[in-house]
This record gives sequence, C-alpha cells and structure tokens, in this order.
Amino acid sequence: MGTSIPVVKAILQANQAVASENRAAFDRVGLLAVNLMAAPGAGKTSLILAALEHLPPALRVGVIEGDIASTLDAERIAARGIPVVQINTGGACHLDAPMIRSALSHLPLENLDLLFIENVGNLICPAEFDLGAHLNIVIASVPEGHDKPYKYPGMFQKADGVVLNKADLLGFLDFDLEAFRHGLRILRPDVPLFIVSCRTGQGMEAWVEWLLEHRRQQRERHGP
Amino acid sequence: MGTSIPVVKAILQANQAVASENRAAFDRVGLLAVNLMAAPGAGKTSLILAALEHLPPALRVGVIEGDIASTLDAERIAARGIPVVQINTGGACHLDAPMIRSALSHLPLENLDLLFIENVGNLICPAEFDLGAHLNIVIASVPEGHDKPYKYPGMFQKADGVVLNKADLLGFLDFDLEAFRHGLRILRPDVPLFIVSCRTGQGMEAWVEWLLEHRRQQRERHGP
Repeated sequence: MGTSIPVVKAILQANQAVASENRAAFDRVGLLAVNLMAAPGAGKTSLILAALEHLPPALRVGVIEGDIASTLDAERIAARGIPVVQINTGGACHLDAPMIRSALSHLPLENLDLLFIENVGNLICPAEFDLGAHLNIVIASVPEGHDKPYKYPGMFQKADGVVLNKADLLGFLDFDLEAFRHGLRILRPDVPLFIVSCRTGQGMEAWVEWLLEHRRQQRERHGP
Repeated sequence: MGTSIPVVKAILQANQAVASENRAAFDRVGLLAVNLMAAPGAGKTSLILAALEHLPPALRVGVIEGDIASTLDAERIAARGIPVVQINTGGACHLDAPMIRSALSHLPLENLDLLFIENVGNLICPAEFDLGAHLNIVIASVPEGHDKPYKYPGMFQKADGVVLNKADLLGFLDFDLEAFRHGLRILRPDVPLFIVSCRTGQGMEAWVEWLLEHRRQQRERHGP
C-alpha cells in the first residue's frame, strides 16, 4: 500500500492551497468560519441550532452542511430561515477545501458574520483536511464514553476548542468526567473545553461568548 | 484528485485477495468470524462483553481489537481471560484484511469457535474493506439518533445484521424507533435487526442465538 502515500500527500497539498484561498475569502469579508467535527450523532446540528438561540439576533449566520447522503440536517437549519448549503459527499468520509469552495458561491458571504461548517460525522478522517476555517471544533458527547481522547487522539490534537455535549446525561450514564478531562489534557493542556447540553441549554452562554470573542478578534484583524 | 482512484482500486483488490485467504483460514478450522462496525462509543466492546455473558461457557471465543491508538478495549477483554490481539492502526480509519492476517498468528485459531473483530470506531470507511469475516455487523445506538441509516447508507448496505444498542435509553431520549426501522428497511428490507441493551442485557438472547445459528451452519459447511 506504500504507493498510495505520494498520492495522499499530493491531495493534502492541493487541499491546503484551496483551504488558504477559502480562508482569504472569509477574511476579505470579515467572516468567522467554524468547522464542527464529531462522531455521528454527537450533536453537530443541534449545537448549531442551540447556538442560534443564544447568539445576538443581529449576527448573521450561514451554514454549510456536510453529509454522505440526505438533506436531513440542512432541512433542520433551513427551517430556521438561515442560509444553508448542503454538500453530499457521495460516500466520502470527510469534507475537503474544494468542496467548501464549491459551496461558497451559493452563500451570501458578504452578508454573513459567522459561518458554521458541519463536517461529515466521523471522529477520524476530517482532522486531516484543512477547510480554511478559523476554528476547528471537536464535539464529543457523554453517551460516547469518556475514553474518546485516548482512542481518537488525532482529532483532539487538531482542535481549537472542544465541546462535550449531552451533559444532561452526566450522572445518568457511566461517564467519568475527570477521566475525559485527563485524556484531553494529556494531548492538549490548554485547549478550551465547553461542557454543554444542547437539549437543556446548559453551558451555551460560555460557548457562544467564546465564539463571539473570536469573531471580534477576527474582525479587528480583517474586517471593514 | 482523480489520480487517486486507480490507487484506491488497487488497494481494494489487494485487500480482497487477502480477505479471501483469511476467510479460508477461518473455514479450515471451522471458526465463525464476526466483524463489528460502529461509530465511536456505540458499544462494540460492550457488545462483545455482554455476548460473553450469554454464550455457552464451552464456546471458545477470541477477539481482535482495532483502534487508532490505546489498548483500553483490549484490556477490558483480556480481563475476562479471553485471547485478544490489539491492532493499533496508527491513524488509519479502518481495519483491512492484511492487518487481520498479521493478527491471526497471535491467536490460537484451532482452539477457537468464534472470533469477534472489533473495527475502528467509524460509521463510514470500514464498510469498504472486506476483512474475511463471515458476518459484517453494524451497531447503532439510541443516543446517536434515529437518522443514521439515512445519513450513513453505505455502512448499513454492507450489514449482514444490525444491532441497535442502548435500548434502555429508548423513551428517555428523542429516538423514533419506527423512523430508524423505516430508514433501515428502505436500504435493506430483510436484514435482521436486534434491539439490545448491553447494560441491562435486554435482547441479548436473540442476538446470541442468531450468532450460534450461524456458527452451527458454518460448522456444517466447513467444520471437522
């Protein structure tokens, strides 16, 4: 299988070039782009919907939905009157920068402040592909168990922030929060951890305030 | 990225050849091999441990554990006195047939009746790689949500059986069992579905009986 390595490297280099172009396009309009990565069912779409409840109404949000198949998640977003583009990867296990570039022409970029990119549900492959987002977020969830940082280190190593969702199930399921924290701290001593429940709204204020602070910083650097 | 396609096909062809050799090795000793695939945290290891509680004590079980990193799952199995081999893929998002071949030399194949192969936690990539197992099982879990067959069709299309785990959370979480069934039936009208809870033991008898029936059939075809 050694022959595959040069090809993979070429793909990653080409991806990186397009990712840089995407990031430049976001910076030109002062838009903060946030890549949400997680295992299937951790609550990526739910985290977007819950954030919409807590973000200032004046903040203009757009969404790119990545899925292998279906438009189920995009429909949940569109029902909220938010500009959304669905990318169906047709089997591919992650989004890549060219897919994002293709989607951007379908979004009113200049009229957006914040763009959520929901990656394909996969705790492994998406970590390898820079999309051009400013923040790469990993969402874990309580029912998945506290061992995820130990077993999927690559994903957590790439994270600018980690969200632990379904915190309303803490105490109800066998989840050792200190073991989760410890696993995360071994990999990333300083990465911010947000413990939230999209269902109850617990922890959403701190998470949204952190996003808004990054939005302010990005605007100071690049905005009009 | 078009140049990657021939390479991927070559890998899949090479994988298929080794998978056939693995299957022949299992058949020579009358061993039933079962490939367990699921998203992270769906309960692959727990399903093995729960099955051990319900299988006849005389049945000789072995396990191959696939993980990107760590030996956490293998340790849980080894604690039960079961022969277990850990494969650390070092980042790769799935097991492949050559990895299984490498592991087989570390297992007492001739003294085993049933081999569980726990794939890497990933609801996408493992479906593409035949390991040589006789049964490919997809485990979904209630907290992941009922939309998984719609969003990850490739995995469910490859399944010889589907297990829905964490059924003790049905009614407590927003999971529409009929929507899950419907999504599965669209893809696979006849695939067996086992609704279980590894925590409470619910549904384990039917699941284990189905495995034992396959073991009997395989033994009639190939056994001594």
